Amino acid sequence: MYKKIIEPRIGETDGMRHINNTALPVWFEIARNPIFRIFDPDLELTYKKWKLIMVRSDFNYLRQIYYGHDVEIRTYVTKIGNTSLTVHHEAWQKGKLRANGSTVMIYYDFIKQESMSLTDDIRKELKKHYITKEELEKKNRKEEKERIAENTCSKEQA
Amino acid sequence: MYKKIIEPRIGETDGMRHINNTALPVWFEIARNPIFRIFDPDLELTYKKWKLIMVRSDFNYLRQIYYGHDVEIRTYVTKIGNTSLTVHHEAWQKGKLRANGSTVMIYYDFIKQESMSLTDDIRKELKKHYITKEELEKKNRKEEKERIAENTCSKEQA
Amino acid sequence: MYKKIIEPRIGETDGMRHINNTALPVWFEIARNPIFRIFDPDLELTYKKWKLIMVRSDFNYLRQIYYGHDVEIRTYVTKIGNTSLTVHHEAWQKGKLRANGSTVMIYYDFIKQESMSLTDDIRKELKKHYITKEELEKKNRKEEKERIAENTCSKEQA
Amino acid sequence: MYKKIIEPRIGETDGMRHINNTALPVWFEIARNPIFRIFDPDLELTYKKWKLIMVRSDFNYLRQIYYGHDVEIRTYVTKIGNTSLTVHHEAWQKGKLRANGSTVMIYYDFIKQESMSLTDDIRKELKKHYITKEELEKKNRKEEKERIAENTCSKEQA
Repeated sequence: MYKKIIEPRIGETDGMRHINNTALPVWFEIARNPIFRIFDPDLELTYKKWKLIMVRSDFNYLRQIYYGHDVEIRTYVTKIGNTSLTVHHEAWQKGKLRANGSTVMIYYDFIKQESMSLTDDIRKELKKHYITKEELEKKNRKEEKERIAENTCSKEQA
Repeated sequence: MYKKIIEPRIGETDGMRHINNTALPVWFEIARNPIFRIFDPDLELTYKKWKLIMVRSDFNYLRQIYYGHDVEIRTYVTKIGNTSLTVHHEAWQKGKLRANGSTVMIYYDFIKQESMSLTDDIRKELKKHYITKEELEKKNRKEEKERIAENTCSKEQA
Repeated sequence: MYKKIIEPRIGETDGMRHINNTALPVWFEIARNPIFRIFDPDLELTYKKWKLIMVRSDFNYLRQIYYGHDVEIRTYVTKIGNTSLTVHHEAWQKGKLRANGSTVMIYYDFIKQESMSLTDDIRKELKKHYITKEELEKKNRKEEKERIAENTCSKEQA
Repeated sequence: MYKKIIEPRIGETDGMRHINNTALPVWFEIARNPIFRIFDPDLELTYKKWKLIMVRSDFNYLRQIYYGHDVEIRTYVTKIGNTSLTVHHEAWQKGKLRANGSTVMIYYDFIKQESMSLTDDIRKELKKHYITKEELEKKNRKEEKERIAENTCSKEQA
């Protein structure tokens, strides 16, 4: 899992005074930098070096996100296919999962304009950040419970 | 169906010289303005007037989109639920469907922080732009065929 | 003078419910497309074809800009130097000048990494959109007066 | 002086493969968060609490900024007026000053829609981050020299 802290800016809020939906794709893109480095260590933007193309992304807006508090983006690899990979992102703020979403990318030769099979070296690197959907849900359920328990304790002490 | 013409900007391209994935949520948001007006005719950004909250969105990147050519965003209503609606967007450039995606929004009271049932007046308006997934696919298939036929003709004439 | 109509999006407003300052550079960039076409008619993004680099820009936020009403961007050429040009943008909404700003660009060879002298053909094209600062102020003063006069008339008739 | 590290994203590059001009206003806005906290400690986005409105900003693009390397934004207060303040931002990447710019903001009552005099408490806080233009230039000159000297040393050792 990769962690990236995002400090929201006022311009990312909208008239409803929470973070606008268009901020999430931007935050998740920053969080993919270490994934990009697996494929192109120097992040060199040439057709020869860059080998990833996005084919799909989705976003679930679970709770409102606010300005004034850091957001932690957690990034996992949830699928390693033949020519594609799926990355899962979560946005946590003040201990709560606020949004999540997945991105499917293809290992792609921009010069030949065709997809390629993921190499063994890349697979090995990606596996270090791999998690199944079940493990992810279980992990989040546990975190949610602990958080509720902590809140109950602090209320009882108060 | 609503149509909105977008003129891409150089800043929306990235180092791979096509439009970056983060431009699509921005373009689709502009294209939803007429949908927003069904709910809030003056687009007044107050908790009393604004009644829509986004819960989900997805994007399919089908073909590369380039700078230098207008993009037509076509917007349909594909589902009218009890408290929610689904909007479908397509991005066409140079006669080809380049990207599409759906957005699920809830009819929402920001003061009480709860969802509401869509009124009959709103349903009536939304139905004017309603299309089934099957009709949409059929329509796009027809357009794709005509386009291929036209290209063949123009090649034969050339 | 070039005109470009911008339809603001909800995501461009911020928590203060007017358009956030970061929208202006984006709108002005779209409005420069016809200027870019003078230098690179097909807007081809290669080091061989693209010949402009930005060195300076400024923005004056004169009045608040709101969501829900179109914004007209008016673009003029205000200086034609040896290797550089200055472009002036204005943002008008509901008949009022809301923001303006200038952008200085250099005619630049990205391969040799050096500036070049503007050619006669380019100068000729740029001159068609040239205005002096004095003419611009005079023009805006006249428009402002007419607008006030019109408002007075409509009030008297009401 | 405030420091904020920005990790550029691929979507902030454009077809010319350096960071697009529109990224700077966004990065400088994030860097103003600690300034905003002087005026509104909880960054509460209400007309009652938020008291700053932007009237002017400018940007100098001194050197190209690239994807793949962190950018350090340094923020200073360069003018404390009666009702206004000027903030100066610098963007450093790989030891070089790549861009800078100033932002003028007014201490502003959004309910009465009028400017207010900066309070003594606010002045005191702002002074902690104050620098004159001369000191700033001197400081940057020194840093530039040291950097060149270091480079010379490392070359001699190599």
